[in-house]
Amino acid sequence: MRSVSIIGVGCTSFGEHWQKSLRELVAEAGIQAVLTSGLVGKDIEAIYGGCMASGRFIAQEHIGALLADQLGLNPIPSTRVEAACASGGVALRSGFLSVASGAYDIVAVGGVEKMTEVSTSEAAIALGGAGDQETELFHGASFPALYALMARKHMHDFGTTEEQMALCSVQAHKNGMLNPNSQFHKEISVEEVMHSGYVASPLKLLDCSPITDGAAAVILCETEKARKMGIPAVEIIGAGQASDSLALSGRKSLTEVAATKKAAEIAYKQANLGPKDIDVVELHDCFSIANIMAIEDLGFFKKGEGGKALEQGKTALNSEISVNPSGGLKCGHPVGATGVKQAVEIFEQLLGKAGKRQVKDAKIGLAHNVGGSGATAVVHIMRRL
Amino acid sequence: MRSVSIIGVGCTSFGEHWQKSLRELVAEAGIQAVLTSGLVGKDIEAIYGGCMASGRFIAQEHIGALLADQLGLNPIPSTRVEAACASGGVALRSGFLSVASGAYDIVAVGGVEKMTEVSTSEAAIALGGAGDQETELFHGASFPALYALMARKHMHDFGTTEEQMALCSVQAHKNGMLNPNSQFHKEISVEEVMHSGYVASPLKLLDCSPITDGAAAVILCETEKARKMGIPAVEIIGAGQASDSLALSGRKSLTEVAATKKAAEIAYKQANLGPKDIDVVELHDCFSIANIMAIEDLGFFKKGEGGKALEQGKTALNSEISVNPSGGLKCGHPVGATGVKQAVEIFEQLLGKAGKRQVKDAKIGLAHNVGGSGATAVVHIMRRL
Repeated sequence: MRSVSIIGVGCTSFGEHWQKSLRELVAEAGIQAVLTSGLVGKDIEAIYGGCMASGRFIAQEHIGALLADQLGLNPIPSTRVEAACASGGVALRSGFLSVASGAYDIVAVGGVEKMTEVSTSEAAIALGGAGDQETELFHGASFPALYALMARKHMHDFGTTEEQMALCSVQAHKNGMLNPNSQFHKEISVEEVMHSGYVASPLKLLDCSPITDGAAAVILCETEKARKMGIPAVEIIGAGQASDSLALSGRKSLTEVAATKKAAEIAYKQANLGPKDIDVVELHDCFSIANIMAIEDLGFFKKGEGGKALEQGKTALNSEISVNPSGGLKCGHPVGATGVKQAVEIFEQLLGKAGKRQVKDAKIGLAHNVGGSGATAVVHIMRRL
Repeated sequence: MRSVSIIGVGCTSFGEHWQKSLRELVAEAGIQAVLTSGLVGKDIEAIYGGCMASGRFIAQEHIGALLADQLGLNPIPSTRVEAACASGGVALRSGFLSVASGAYDIVAVGGVEKMTEVSTSEAAIALGGAGDQETELFHGASFPALYALMARKHMHDFGTTEEQMALCSVQAHKNGMLNPNSQFHKEISVEEVMHSGYVASPLKLLDCSPITDGAAAVILCETEKARKMGIPAVEIIGAGQASDSLALSGRKSLTEVAATKKAAEIAYKQANLGPKDIDVVELHDCFSIANIMAIEDLGFFKKGEGGKALEQGKTALNSEISVNPSGGLKCGHPVGATGVKQAVEIFEQLLGKAGKRQVKDAKIGLAHNVGGSGATAVVHIMRRL
């Protein structure tokens, strides 16, 4: 297996893009990624694209072909992968494997979702397809409800509080203020989160990530080739993917995401690093409780101590571990794009290009993407080349 | 890149499975594939699954996780790929690349679609997502209409007749009679096709593949390891995938599928073989005209001479080139499963296990899977190990 690096990135702003279609978002992020890599379209040998539910959001499947078509890259192979909210991360790992394998030298990886063409309730139902339709959504257990169950158990077992969870959102919005692509540019307080109205108790509106349109893209290149090109690059030194029960009822524990632990274990081992080596992390905070579980499952804090770590400011920008400098999913979660956008952020952080939200001396970064309530998890570890 | 072989296959019967859910179909095909390989579940290192539109058919996405879960294979990585009706073929190629690369030694590839949970008109609209939603389906151009345009142009340019197209379906049903898994076990005549009522002129009901439930699976293994296991196996000696314009309006020609030609060119080159070397082919006959275009685009007959070849019986079982001994898509097209089922059929043909539909002395086989009206095509060439 060969070494693989990211040599170019692109990302649209995240938000409600009433005036842009999915293919316009794809073009914007894709062309930006190609331009920053210094390559031209014909250098790209294959495409992997993550998209969760375009069939239900815009009645369009066959997103692989759409990507190649829209970017003027026919007839190269273009493959859509879908793993619910981990679609982007799985696309990244698929692209990574295809270059690591020697199948290709240069590959484009994209992620996209156009979610605002349907009503919020229709979107919630479409997103429910990430869980177990037969035993969960059909009976009314939509995603806030599933994560609420995890939150309740975490509160019960470890004394985690709603205020601690609220701090995840407060911190996300604070970081999002510094990110031009964030869906929100507005600081919020713990009090505002606490009074934002229950969606599924104990989760309130401001504990939840929003409905978002957006796209992100990265260009992957075999590392030796990237080195010869002499452009700023970030090497992917670990990539893990794992699966778990589709339904929450099949899990061994409600307070951890076992697939995250497994994917992280694989990635850490490949990278020959541990949680203490990570300077910056973009993790999957679809709900505030997901943030707390992730900082525990990724090994930054002991199980049950995530809430306290938040309280102590240990995950703020330029603290013990800088969590979600981009603002995370709380500041925009176009599901299929999220995993790729995380890689874009880590790329910019490691190259010192993250502007006002730059993590000082960030040398090693980690991206963590989860599908459903934890049935798929993907972890990538990266360092500046 | 290492050599890759198929060492086990499984397939459900194709039809209207009112009594079976998607996950039951998956389990049936998957377990059968594992059993025929002589392996056990824990030998499998990763899963690739093809599924087109489960979100719209059964409100379930995240099919990768569902596959791992349903087959009891957590926590291995499991990835759904979607490329419309080529989802199965792209899943096969993704699995092939993952073993060829050295990432894994043993991988399961599955394909599934459960289409009968919605009405036929809802299914037609969901399938329309394989084309260009904005410029085609939205304006009423569903798939029979798109293929009807190709048929009209083929008739105009080459004098292809409706009777010649009808022969594709007649031959498919004849072969399907010999396949226990076929959706139909009923011979039909050219006259019956001609009087079956226009769906989109010149295509009639019996020119079209049906709505089908079904699943198929294969187990891939690195070839040297397969050899050591000493079990009957089929080596994949060429694998090509190509993309083209999503919309028919973007194509250079309406009478050929350029992506098929490109994918075949790659696969033939890898295999160091040509059309004349192929003994048996499972090709993508979603509509009768697609059969005629495919035998031309794959190089078996010159462009424009496909219709005549049908008339002369050159594509019948044990003729010049045995086309679709399984009955092809005309005898069942569960879209995400089709590309994998084609590989199952070629496996059985090359190992002499195809029963009454066995192609005599079949040494080299080809599987050809198309997405949409030709925006994705995948070609695999195989030989007995």
